[in-house]
Amino acid sequence: MPSGRSMDSRAGLAATPGALPYYVAFSQLLGLTVVAMTGAWLGLYRGGIAWEGALQFNVHPLSMVIGLIFLQGDALLVYRVFRNETKRTTKVLHGLLHVFALVIALVGVVAVFDYHRKKGYADLYSLHSWCGLLVLVLYFVQWLVGLSFFLFPGASFSLRSRYRPQHVFFGAAIFLLSVGTALLGLKEALLFKLGAKYSTFEAEGVLANVLGLLLVGFGVTVLYILTRSDWKRPPQAEEQALSMDFKTLTEGDSPGSQ
Amino acid sequence: MPSGRSMDSRAGLAATPGALPYYVAFSQLLGLTVVAMTGAWLGLYRGGIAWEGALQFNVHPLSMVIGLIFLQGDALLVYRVFRNETKRTTKVLHGLLHVFALVIALVGVVAVFDYHRKKGYADLYSLHSWCGLLVLVLYFVQWLVGLSFFLFPGASFSLRSRYRPQHVFFGAAIFLLSVGTALLGLKEALLFKLGAKYSTFEAEGVLANVLGLLLVGFGVTVLYILTRSDWKRPPQAEEQALSMDFKTLTEGDSPGSQ
Repeated sequence: MPSGRSMDSRAGLAATPGALPYYVAFSQLLGLTVVAMTGAWLGLYRGGIAWEGALQFNVHPLSMVIGLIFLQGDALLVYRVFRNETKRTTKVLHGLLHVFALVIALVGVVAVFDYHRKKGYADLYSLHSWCGLLVLVLYFVQWLVGLSFFLFPGASFSLRSRYRPQHVFFGAAIFLLSVGTALLGLKEALLFKLGAKYSTFEAEGVLANVLGLLLVGFGVTVLYILTRSDWKRPPQAEEQALSMDFKTLTEGDSPGSQ
Repeated sequence: MPSGRSMDSRAGLAATPGALPYYVAFSQLLGLTVVAMTGAWLGLYRGGIAWEGALQFNVHPLSMVIGLIFLQGDALLVYRVFRNETKRTTKVLHGLLHVFALVIALVGVVAVFDYHRKKGYADLYSLHSWCGLLVLVLYFVQWLVGLSFFLFPGASFSLRSRYRPQHVFFGAAIFLLSVGTALLGLKEALLFKLGAKYSTFEAEGVLANVLGLLLVGFGVTVLYILTRSDWKRPPQAEEQALSMDFKTLTEGDSPGSQ
């Protein structure tokens, strides 16, 4: 729809595409349901959450879902939701949400390693843990590279515009791999505890399966909002804002021709 | 790179972007390795494959990986690989690869249901099976809707061009969900058989974890080739071919203004 790209001539603002707010609202409903349902699963069937003792493990799934699913997903949506704020404000919010996500995820990672250590369990043997480690490393590298290209004034416009599609692609890929890793972890937790009882449609298994489908739903919805081409921030306004930002950040001349 | 969109004036052919063939070759190397490694896993640690007896289960993972991972992935790449064939040829190949993928997947689904029935196991209780069922239904619906919009001459150009981005998005989403479902199935097969031995870095567990990472790698590579905007078929040539196709298919007038 061309209306998404048109500028509102009275206010100089880019119009928000009509359906976008509903999709964003739906994504938030799904994301919050996923967080609430993870909490409900741990509360109802796993004895709740504590940092000490056997319940320390339960910090892991909740932290990862809040950090690497909900907050990471929302960080990707920042450029679709904040369409008229300056590019710099939106960038800082995008970067900060990713920092929060990473910090909360690290709490979850420390929880599971600490729990394994106390129990004498082996670390990093499962496909879930390999995927999780991959996600964490890629997430941190992506954040560092993103910061150095987009937030510091050193990179030229042409370098930024060549890196941008790669940043968006790998951002989406890391997010999807996070969702996949969460599904693997959920499955692992179910099979370890329920074993053969999983096949008798135990209430916990059914609840966790529904949680798994909701995780998939959140991933697909975020990806849809992110990739719909007529929902992107209008390119012209983006470039203007970028150029403005650059001046604000450097308070100097135009960027070098690197 | 603008060269991807430019036309070769001597032959009237769209130039193939320089790096594309290497990425496609890499995706095929990954895809074939995934298929071979699935076969090796089943051969080395699961007693091989047969339709009768306990080995019938093993038809399931191999069929699903060949059908819903390798062939589905390649079906998505058809428009990137065949850049100068007529749109109709490419469409037919895209549709046929998806049919092959679906038929091979159905063999794999029949194998597991038949195996469960003979063993008296419950069906469709796990997150893997729920995701798998979702994939199959969505895959079939996507194929039917794609066929009626793009291959039959009933749909107008404007209807097709409005549906195309949805078809591409849901195609990619279904493919990624297939990869996720395969990871869940692999994890399930490991935990059912290895149990606590999984944590002792048994050879089977390590091989299956590597297979899981290669599955992720294939998914990411196909997604990268599919979404890189300068690797798309040139829009102009596409529209010309579409219009030519339409006449070839209908042997009649221009489409209605639906």
